[in-house]
Amino acid sequence: MFRLLGRWLRAILATLLTLLVPLVAYVGFLYATLQQQEDDRAHLETKKQYLQQLASSTRLAPDAPNIIFFLYDDMGYGDIGAGVTNPGLIATPNLDRLAAQGVTLSDFHSPSPVCTPARAGYLTGRLAPRAGLPDVVFPTDRLQGILPRLGSHDAHLRLPAEEITLADVLGAAGYRTGMIGKWHLGDRSPSLPNDMGFGFFYGALYSNDMQPFAWYRNRSLDTPAPADQTRMTEVYTREALAFIEQDSSQPFFLYFAHNFPHDPLHVRDARRGLSGAGLYGDVLEEIDEGVGQILDALRRRGELENTLILVTSDNGPWFLGDAGSQRGRKGSTFEGGQRVPFIAHWPARIPGGRTEPAMAMGTDLLPTLLQILDLPPPGDRSLDGRSILPVLTQGGETPHDYLYYYDSDQLFAVRDERFKYRGAAGVSYATDATPLAFRVPQKEWLFDLENDPREAYDASDNQPQPLARLRQVFEAKQAEMRGNLRGWH
Amino acid sequence: MFRLLGRWLRAILATLLTLLVPLVAYVGFLYATLQQQEDDRAHLETKKQYLQQLASSTRLAPDAPNIIFFLYDDMGYGDIGAGVTNPGLIATPNLDRLAAQGVTLSDFHSPSPVCTPARAGYLTGRLAPRAGLPDVVFPTDRLQGILPRLGSHDAHLRLPAEEITLADVLGAAGYRTGMIGKWHLGDRSPSLPNDMGFGFFYGALYSNDMQPFAWYRNRSLDTPAPADQTRMTEVYTREALAFIEQDSSQPFFLYFAHNFPHDPLHVRDARRGLSGAGLYGDVLEEIDEGVGQILDALRRRGELENTLILVTSDNGPWFLGDAGSQRGRKGSTFEGGQRVPFIAHWPARIPGGRTEPAMAMGTDLLPTLLQILDLPPPGDRSLDGRSILPVLTQGGETPHDYLYYYDSDQLFAVRDERFKYRGAAGVSYATDATPLAFRVPQKEWLFDLENDPREAYDASDNQPQPLARLRQVFEAKQAEMRGNLRGWH
Repeated sequence: MFRLLGRWLRAILATLLTLLVPLVAYVGFLYATLQQQEDDRAHLETKKQYLQQLASSTRLAPDAPNIIFFLYDDMGYGDIGAGVTNPGLIATPNLDRLAAQGVTLSDFHSPSPVCTPARAGYLTGRLAPRAGLPDVVFPTDRLQGILPRLGSHDAHLRLPAEEITLADVLGAAGYRTGMIGKWHLGDRSPSLPNDMGFGFFYGALYSNDMQPFAWYRNRSLDTPAPADQTRMTEVYTREALAFIEQDSSQPFFLYFAHNFPHDPLHVRDARRGLSGAGLYGDVLEEIDEGVGQILDALRRRGELENTLILVTSDNGPWFLGDAGSQRGRKGSTFEGGQRVPFIAHWPARIPGGRTEPAMAMGTDLLPTLLQILDLPPPGDRSLDGRSILPVLTQGGETPHDYLYYYDSDQLFAVRDERFKYRGAAGVSYATDATPLAFRVPQKEWLFDLENDPREAYDASDNQPQPLARLRQVFEAKQAEMRGNLRGWH
Repeated sequence: MFRLLGRWLRAILATLLTLLVPLVAYVGFLYATLQQQEDDRAHLETKKQYLQQLASSTRLAPDAPNIIFFLYDDMGYGDIGAGVTNPGLIATPNLDRLAAQGVTLSDFHSPSPVCTPARAGYLTGRLAPRAGLPDVVFPTDRLQGILPRLGSHDAHLRLPAEEITLADVLGAAGYRTGMIGKWHLGDRSPSLPNDMGFGFFYGALYSNDMQPFAWYRNRSLDTPAPADQTRMTEVYTREALAFIEQDSSQPFFLYFAHNFPHDPLHVRDARRGLSGAGLYGDVLEEIDEGVGQILDALRRRGELENTLILVTSDNGPWFLGDAGSQRGRKGSTFEGGQRVPFIAHWPARIPGGRTEPAMAMGTDLLPTLLQILDLPPPGDRSLDGRSILPVLTQGGETPHDYLYYYDSDQLFAVRDERFKYRGAAGVSYATDATPLAFRVPQKEWLFDLENDPREAYDASDNQPQPLARLRQVFEAKQAEMRGNLRGWH
């Protein structure tokens, strides 16, 4: 009997010890994570100081432009007239006019091949892992709201409060700031649009295929779920017009992030069947009609000349839509997943009718706006973007030595103006066009984009120097991010 | 105590009954499967009768052509000069010459987007599910060799013996038949190349990424695994030349199925780095060198004029390679997965320098060869192919009302000359360029290939009549296949 008990005790002890090791490891991990978060949150203070300093030291020039940033959702490189490869099935006369009278960049990239991290990059000037939000976020249900996800940074649920957005900067500098449309950077304070620099918000907190899909006016529910998506473009445009037409002595910054053409697609009845590209085309044409109304309003107010209008997309096309003659679609770090249309229209400063080939990325918007307004960058953090103002106004060289392609927190590729290097550590969703059963072998590839724009042929053999150089740049970036992911100074 | 026993007995009985239901169902299923297999095997007899009848009744015309069928593995629509979209990085002067002096089909499709079923379709004139081999086969290990896979037709491991191949027909009609290269239709009798009509075989039983990768001469091991793939193209070409140059009064049929450019890629040292498209291009250039040697041999023998040379691929490109400006790659039923280059060269009968736009599929080869030799089709089974001899010799209309796109045993799409309809029942690997996390919504799509060759826009809204018609054709095909999958008469 005692012997049996002894055996039991030994078994229990062994079990406890076996459990202890991972437990200790997990507690250690949690502790390190919390330490890290505290570090990160210290930058909330430096953010506030930076914005206060901007607010107190900035006197906006009388000719500071209005700024409208149109961000389409899942629109591909080949979908609109401003693209190089558009087959002309979709009539977007207003975008076409903006392109014709402005500048288009033919080698512009979203900061990520999927929604949330792309938006984090556009708004902060930092690559998504650096901005603390590398993955797509979903509506926080009760469980997610209470528990931080095991093993992941709590901030993975939302844009961290210490990040500095376009709206933070422009608001501090004296702009009237507003946002219409899809946020998708967290559905709880302190990461709601009104927390992150936007004086006004009307729109949805997520993608239009996520539930509950409702529209908010600032922090209050305006249209309960399910919001009628056949009215979405109309409602968003109406709200944008109301924002633009408010009486104000300040210039405005409007971030107009359409939920469309992300799936599911809807238009109002009167627009159905008008395009040559089915419902997808109808949706883009209805959005374009709204763009036209906004241009009319600006013209009426005499403000079109000095409004900087930016138009682009958050990633390549998803189920429908045209990536142009590129490899890959949404979710892929091949060019079709990230190279998107880009138009900048600003008659007062940007000579029109030009297409510029300089490579650029969505992280460049914040530094570009800083340069336009002659504002200092924040001193406590790295930005990944570079100002492309010279490219927009006069053309010429890209400000980048290299562009980095991240999906989630993994670096997939790096490129210079001619070559694109893919690392050997790709995972399944790097497979691009291949189905689940066929995973990409984890090989190192070098694509010569100049001669092989569809990324079909690994040029490693023929180009040993670019291969070695870009491999080094790739590894240096990985090391840099491992050492100081958030880029704090 | 008795009560306890009673309780135990009841529990045991309940458990047994619970187990009995699936057991009975499984036995019933096995019985039905075995019945089905017996049905199928009855056609082994009618196959023999058909081939005997061909053998006894056929007198080959003195001008019956030699036939060489080059099948490349995973070569894309944009890879070679005969493609429309080739960027010219890969020098294939011999294929270019065949294309220039022969006919190319710009809308030709492999019967499947993956290796094994594509080959089943090319060789039998039947879609892969009909030919009893809808899925890729792998080396049969001990377990697979002993047990039929649960819930799947035993024949899923190999091309069923009752299937009639190009080699069966041509051999019976009086041809000397040989095969070089990749078989991939089963690694056991009665489904080896020498069982299925080929008088001579040299090559591999599987893809070059499968283990053990060895070369066989007929039924005997010639080069044990791992065979040196840097020598593969050279060895295959040498064997092909030896086959062609055999003394014989018969015309020959050579099925030359290169293992390349399927991954992994290898060339002999002297060819490395010569192409403008890395190792992939080097591989295609080495194969083309071999094609040139074969053309030289035919010319020397005075046989080039009356040799029908066919060149195509088993599916779109995999990890590397260029699908041209099409959506999808290997594994996808979008055009990039199945539309492949096609060249037919036969100076005696085919006027050269032409590109024909008629839609066609690899299942057309067998009916085409039957027409060339004026042989009757088998009477006991449906063929899915149609003769494209008139298209090859004089151009004009496709013989197909519709082409059907199968992946595994699932119908994904049907098209006519202008529209392509995708059914609503697509599964994850229909996602094409989208990663695992983003599954295609199971929607019905209609693509207008004439105006939207990249399958970007669902035209259902704009084209209700084609939608309804193609949906009906799609459903009728599904019903037909459900009713009589193997197409037995």
